[in-house]
Amino acid sequence: MAVKIGLIGAGRMGRVYASTLAFSVSEVDLVAVADPDRAALAEVADRYHIPSTYQDYRDLLGSQEVEAVVVASPTGTHAEVIAAAAQAGKHIFSEKPLSQNLQRCDEALKAVRQAGVKLQMGFMRRFDAPYAAAKQKILDGVIGKPVMFKSTSRDPKRTSLEFAKRENSGGLILDMGVHDFDLARWLMDSEVARVHSEGACLAFPELKEVGDIDNVVINLRFTNDAIGNIDLSRNAVYGYDIRTEVLGTDGSLWIGYLQQTPTLVLTRAGVMHDTVPYFMERFGSAYAEQVRVFVKHILEDTPPEVTGEDARAATAIGIAATLSLDEGRPVQVREVDL
Amino acid sequence: MAVKIGLIGAGRMGRVYASTLAFSVSEVDLVAVADPDRAALAEVADRYHIPSTYQDYRDLLGSQEVEAVVVASPTGTHAEVIAAAAQAGKHIFSEKPLSQNLQRCDEALKAVRQAGVKLQMGFMRRFDAPYAAAKQKILDGVIGKPVMFKSTSRDPKRTSLEFAKRENSGGLILDMGVHDFDLARWLMDSEVARVHSEGACLAFPELKEVGDIDNVVINLRFTNDAIGNIDLSRNAVYGYDIRTEVLGTDGSLWIGYLQQTPTLVLTRAGVMHDTVPYFMERFGSAYAEQVRVFVKHILEDTPPEVTGEDARAATAIGIAATLSLDEGRPVQVREVDL
Amino acid sequence: MAVKIGLIGAGRMGRVYASTLAFSVSEVDLVAVADPDRAALAEVADRYHIPSTYQDYRDLLGSQEVEAVVVASPTGTHAEVIAAAAQAGKHIFSEKPLSQNLQRCDEALKAVRQAGVKLQMGFMRRFDAPYAAAKQKILDGVIGKPVMFKSTSRDPKRTSLEFAKRENSGGLILDMGVHDFDLARWLMDSEVARVHSEGACLAFPELKEVGDIDNVVINLRFTNDAIGNIDLSRNAVYGYDIRTEVLGTDGSLWIGYLQQTPTLVLTRAGVMHDTVPYFMERFGSAYAEQVRVFVKHILEDTPPEVTGEDARAATAIGIAATLSLDEGRPVQVREVDL
Amino acid sequence: MAVKIGLIGAGRMGRVYASTLAFSVSEVDLVAVADPDRAALAEVADRYHIPSTYQDYRDLLGSQEVEAVVVASPTGTHAEVIAAAAQAGKHIFSEKPLSQNLQRCDEALKAVRQAGVKLQMGFMRRFDAPYAAAKQKILDGVIGKPVMFKSTSRDPKRTSLEFAKRENSGGLILDMGVHDFDLARWLMDSEVARVHSEGACLAFPELKEVGDIDNVVINLRFTNDAIGNIDLSRNAVYGYDIRTEVLGTDGSLWIGYLQQTPTLVLTRAGVMHDTVPYFMERFGSAYAEQVRVFVKHILEDTPPEVTGEDARAATAIGIAATLSLDEGRPVQVREVDL
Repeated sequence: MAVKIGLIGAGRMGRVYASTLAFSVSEVDLVAVADPDRAALAEVADRYHIPSTYQDYRDLLGSQEVEAVVVASPTGTHAEVIAAAAQAGKHIFSEKPLSQNLQRCDEALKAVRQAGVKLQMGFMRRFDAPYAAAKQKILDGVIGKPVMFKSTSRDPKRTSLEFAKRENSGGLILDMGVHDFDLARWLMDSEVARVHSEGACLAFPELKEVGDIDNVVINLRFTNDAIGNIDLSRNAVYGYDIRTEVLGTDGSLWIGYLQQTPTLVLTRAGVMHDTVPYFMERFGSAYAEQVRVFVKHILEDTPPEVTGEDARAATAIGIAATLSLDEGRPVQVREVDL
Repeated sequence: MAVKIGLIGAGRMGRVYASTLAFSVSEVDLVAVADPDRAALAEVADRYHIPSTYQDYRDLLGSQEVEAVVVASPTGTHAEVIAAAAQAGKHIFSEKPLSQNLQRCDEALKAVRQAGVKLQMGFMRRFDAPYAAAKQKILDGVIGKPVMFKSTSRDPKRTSLEFAKRENSGGLILDMGVHDFDLARWLMDSEVARVHSEGACLAFPELKEVGDIDNVVINLRFTNDAIGNIDLSRNAVYGYDIRTEVLGTDGSLWIGYLQQTPTLVLTRAGVMHDTVPYFMERFGSAYAEQVRVFVKHILEDTPPEVTGEDARAATAIGIAATLSLDEGRPVQVREVDL
Repeated sequence: MAVKIGLIGAGRMGRVYASTLAFSVSEVDLVAVADPDRAALAEVADRYHIPSTYQDYRDLLGSQEVEAVVVASPTGTHAEVIAAAAQAGKHIFSEKPLSQNLQRCDEALKAVRQAGVKLQMGFMRRFDAPYAAAKQKILDGVIGKPVMFKSTSRDPKRTSLEFAKRENSGGLILDMGVHDFDLARWLMDSEVARVHSEGACLAFPELKEVGDIDNVVINLRFTNDAIGNIDLSRNAVYGYDIRTEVLGTDGSLWIGYLQQTPTLVLTRAGVMHDTVPYFMERFGSAYAEQVRVFVKHILEDTPPEVTGEDARAATAIGIAATLSLDEGRPVQVREVDL
Repeated sequence: MAVKIGLIGAGRMGRVYASTLAFSVSEVDLVAVADPDRAALAEVADRYHIPSTYQDYRDLLGSQEVEAVVVASPTGTHAEVIAAAAQAGKHIFSEKPLSQNLQRCDEALKAVRQAGVKLQMGFMRRFDAPYAAAKQKILDGVIGKPVMFKSTSRDPKRTSLEFAKRENSGGLILDMGVHDFDLARWLMDSEVARVHSEGACLAFPELKEVGDIDNVVINLRFTNDAIGNIDLSRNAVYGYDIRTEVLGTDGSLWIGYLQQTPTLVLTRAGVMHDTVPYFMERFGSAYAEQVRVFVKHILEDTPPEVTGEDARAATAIGIAATLSLDEGRPVQVREVDL
């Protein structure tokens, strides 16, 4: 009883999902793929044995066979594609973000609600084994009441200047921080009420030209009075660095460290080991796991745990944190989300 | 220009290789599979889209289409299957061990040499990124001259009693130690000249009934006078534990640690984290990597780096170490390999 | 040619310094001790073989023999004692803080300048081997230009309610953060220009009664545009937790980890180890090291590297961070330091 | 009620004990010191305020005032000094080893028994916090029945050639391994029945000239059938490296790691930290702790837990392991100890 899936987008993330759907999730048939780029479309269809191809994703949505779609189209199109897929009655798994515009978030979410389809957002860190284990520990009461959230997300290099522009990626805070904002809400089980950002362009002066920064620290205050801080950086030249701490009244949880299976080199100079190069090495299996869970929700008709509302909330925090950076003052999240 | 591959064996390891060949190695076509078990055969062929199936592997070897085979049949059949595949003119990738009998090793190797085909043995630890990095560091002279080899291989549970019998697995030393013996020869770049084993049945008394032990330490002396020690255990109840050290005159290398990406739980009781459950979590990607390298050797007509002779040498050390256990004395490896 | 030292204060920290001066620093003679508490005075004099005792520290300052003093009197008296010691022509080593009042800081510093004596402040973390090594690495250019400062100081338990009052300890931020403020200025080699605090009383409701909080995160902006964040907590029930990171354009430094020499316990439940209980286990040797350096400065007539001005600057940051907490807005440090 | 102690030996270890007795153990008075070297004697007496000095230790033993002695004289004299101290009715704390000759061990132990005095041997690793914690965990049953003992002792440099001679240090195995032999007996709670050594001179050819080796691995078999392995090396150029594992039926214990409080340096080249330089940095506090315990045993008239018999047993294992090296065969410990 396999779920018949159509893939929208055959770019970098589209291929990650194609491979996952074709090889790693057994209860699905990947029956269609859509992408305006003819060459990419042909290559992905061939490599992953996908029978139907479409240049226009709306034609894919028109296929009776397709029961659910995986949205891996460019970031700026997510909200529109999700709304159209919902109107076509398809269940939807979508890469983050929903949209960097809260109004467009709302339109998409309304379409989903009206159609009564399932929507699961690709916050894959929730499906990473260490993060999932940490959430369970918190639910089990191992660290008591969570009081402080600390999170670090650092890339080993800067993005392209084109992508760095606010109109494209949303800027450092929205682009990189959205995962941390989602983790904050999820692990602390409380909404973020207020943010304060200190950021600057310190390592890559050329980013300033296009209006972006490369380092930021963001104070958080949750509605339950818990506090937190997130730091984001583009210059972790030593490797991809994703770590989170949750300090509670009875203990603390540390999630993530620099490497996987170390080779230690010990010489007169000291002890040396390497780090995780980048995100697929660190989170590759989480990408597959979240799709497995999405398929299970369809087959068993259960609600997804990472909703469009979650994606919207993370975006709202990012917008507020960006505003705090721009205006140099703490910003209540509700200011940007009336 | 993909290499057309036939898979011999559709059991546990056969499926690992089917998945690898179907999904993770791009320059191959998995065109045939053989297994006497009809149900397993059908299931694997269906799951991995393999067009031809055979109950008798000799029929698969008769196929003109098949250029190379991956041997994942039961341990005791490897030597026979390798010889037959060589006689059929197929390149061969084979799971370890070659055979636990040196004479049968020699017969298979003779067939391979006469046919002029490539044979690569599945010592996948050599393809594990940390081990490969360590080997390169040694070649680069980072630790000077290697003088001591230390290796630990511990399973989280005992094998079945049937498998534990010497006539099946070869016993603890041959079954588990063969990887360490291969690492010893490879990393130290010297043959093992003498071994001394101290072992006992200490954790699982029922193993004694079938003639096996559950813990052993094995002293090594290399032909270049370097020394070493390997410990093997079936009762690492805390998780799968694979570690190796190479101490040199200018430094040391430590390969492996207990876990991958940790979640640390910090409470009044202390700091706690989990471990690697078992071998696929630890070495899964090395299984794919070694097949990629094998296919590359075929396409580029270059010699495999893990040869049948390597497999034979590791087996000879294991036989000598088992004899040392039985007779309570150091054993020269050449005693068992005239 | 030993320096003759008088110790002012025979309480908890007084005894730490008495032990250090008597046993761990060879070029000093501990010739006098002052404390209004007769019993404490007698006990310390006897235990550390100190010939002269005084109930009034001003009498100790009147002694011709005493060349330098170590000030370990109650926090609130430091500025007054330092000024008096300076006026008496003694070199001064003083426990932190200088004062929690900037005007009183200035009065003490003026007295020191006018007398031309040496003053070294007890920011012992600068003398802790890992922190000292980190500073040297930064000076060596190992991580390029420092762009982000992250620091964590967490106590395993709350202070007494009496001590928690702002009029006594200065509150959480001034009491615990002063070391981090000093590290921030020292490691980043830039002054702190702006701070923003989010804090709350989350673990110990009784602290709210006396006007204190138990958790806080503090955003920093340096005058050179670098950024930072400090978190302070009273509920690190898992152990004393002091860690600092400095992220630069060419790398990062991590200073500190939870424990010293670990015993790992590996069972079916996972891997467990313990932590550092409290500050003397972690920083004990740094207390001695800083005094050794102070004595060396006297003997060689060189300027101390941890000055009263440093102490004043750290206090100013703390006052600004506390104001940010009280008023819920970012505060320029110069606002509190006209 | 302080115990009056005489120190025999004012060399390197004598000074370690003088400092400990003078400063770190409160219930003792260090009343006398003996050393044939006049200058060393005067310096130690002056530095640690010791009233009585003797060039001949027998004169110190004649002092009525002295209740107990700490023996830190040259290794070869321990047995003789212990016997004389016992005959003089003094309690005795002695640096290891007792003697490298089992007959001389027996003579000293006989004198101790006849005199009814307390003798505690300086196996200070038993008093190191991580080792003490591990022993307690084993007694608590945390790892079930211990089945395998693994221990590593590696020095960062070779000894002097003079010291390396067997007639002086006893050679690598007896000199360095004696601590591991003691740990083996203590942690496994079983006697060592059989040993097998593989060793060679691999890093420092000059050691071969004086009859010593620089690397060795030693297989152990305990009387309760448990097994073990110890490796010793003089070429741990990366730092002093002391680690022990005890694998049991329900878990494992790892004691020791390379460093204390790390500074991690993260650059493009990887992550680097330093190591422990040498033994005082690693075991300094254990030296003091064992003396504290000795004094407590005298004051409370309780039996020491590290006896002369323990020292004798460790020596016997070392002699057997050295014989195994010389003769290339496993050696029963009882062969050398009839």
